[in-house]
Amino acid sequence: MTVVTVQTAARFEMIDITGRVAAVVRTGGIKQGFCTVFVPHTTAAVTINENADPDVPRDILAGLDRLVPLAGGYRHAEGNSAAHIKASLFGASQTVLVEDGALVLGTWQSLFLCEFDGPRTRKVLVKLTGA
Amino acid sequence: MTVVTVQTAARFEMIDITGRVAAVVRTGGIKQGFCTVFVPHTTAAVTINENADPDVPRDILAGLDRLVPLAGGYRHAEGNSAAHIKASLFGASQTVLVEDGALVLGTWQSLFLCEFDGPRTRKVLVKLTGA
Amino acid sequence: MTVVTVQTAARFEMIDITGRVAAVVRTGGIKQGFCTVFVPHTTAAVTINENADPDVPRDILAGLDRLVPLAGGYRHAEGNSAAHIKASLFGASQTVLVEDGALVLGTWQSLFLCEFDGPRTRKVLVKLTGA
Repeated sequence: MTVVTVQTAARFEMIDITGRVAAVVRTGGIKQGFCTVFVPHTTAAVTINENADPDVPRDILAGLDRLVPLAGGYRHAEGNSAAHIKASLFGASQTVLVEDGALVLGTWQSLFLCEFDGPRTRKVLVKLTGA
Repeated sequence: MTVVTVQTAARFEMIDITGRVAAVVRTGGIKQGFCTVFVPHTTAAVTINENADPDVPRDILAGLDRLVPLAGGYRHAEGNSAAHIKASLFGASQTVLVEDGALVLGTWQSLFLCEFDGPRTRKVLVKLTGA
Repeated sequence: MTVVTVQTAARFEMIDITGRVAAVVRTGGIKQGFCTVFVPHTTAAVTINENADPDVPRDILAGLDRLVPLAGGYRHAEGNSAAHIKASLFGASQTVLVEDGALVLGTWQSLFLCEFDGPRTRKVLVKLTGA
C-alpha cells in the first residue's frame, strides 16, 4: 500500500491524481492485475472523469452543488452534511485494470481526488494486486 | 465467501456493518489484500461514511429522499423505483484494503448497508482476496 | 482482459450485458474470485440493477435525467456535461464475486452498460482475478 498525500486548496475541488497513481503502478512490480485507489475520508471521494477540458470538473462540482446544496436543513452539527452525501454518491474508491505494467484508462479518463469539504490535507491509498 | 444476514427495520435505514465485516477479516486468514462487500439486491446498497454522529446517516438518508422522492411519476408497478435509483447512485459494493490482517478504514469511516425499501431481510456477501 | 463491444442506439440507454459478461467468466478458467467490469469512457457507466421489469431501467434513466438535466448552465463546450456528471454518479466499474465458475448475482440483479451520451460504440473491459 502506498500513501499519496494531497493538499486541497478550496471547499470544492477535483484534483487530477492520475500521474501520481501511474507512478505507483510503474514502480509496483506487477505486469497485470488491478490498482485500487481508496480515500480514508468521509467528505472526499475518488472518481474517474475527463480532464482534457477543465470545464468538465468545474461543471461536475457545480452540478453536484446544485444537487446537494450546502444548506439543506441538515441536523449534523458540523455543517458539512452535503459533503458526506456527495462522498457516498461518488464513492470512496475506484478500481482500474493494470495491463503491461500500466493503468488501463480510456483516452479521456483521469483519476480525481474529489474534495467536498476543503481545504484539507487528504490521503489517497493506492494498492496493487496481480503478478 | 461469507454471507452476513441483516434484518432491516424501516423503509430507509443505514445499518453499520463494520464490526461484522471486520470479524470476517479477522478470521479470514489473510494478512494483506482486499475485502469486497457486495449486496445481492437492487433496492439496497453498501456505502462508506461517518457514524460517529448518528445525524450523519440521518442527513444522508433525508438528503437522498429529497433528491429521489418516492413519488416521481414512475412507471414500475411495484412503486419502489426511487429505491432502485438510490441503489445505483450508491452502488452494490465497496472494496476496502486489508493490511496486517485488518480492514484499513479512516478514523471516521464505517461500512453501512443502506436499506432503501425496507423493512426486509438482506444479505451481505463478504469476500477476501490476498495472502 | 476481454473487450466487449456494445453499440448503443439512443442518447440515454441501459443495456443489459449480464449474458456477455457471464460468457467471459464461463470461459475464463477461474472457479472462484472476482470479475471486474470497467468502461473506458467518461459519459457512460456500469451499474447493477433490475431488468425483470423493463420499466425499472426506464425509471432510472428518467429519474437521472430529472436529477441532472441536459441544460444546466454548464460551461463545457461539448454540451454533454450532464452525461459526465451521471457517469461519476454511477461509476466506471462494478466488481462481482465469482463462485463455482459463475457470477454471483442476486435474483433481480443484472449488469448494465449505461449510455448517457449516445448513440455511440462503447467498449466494456472485463477482467477476472482468482484461481
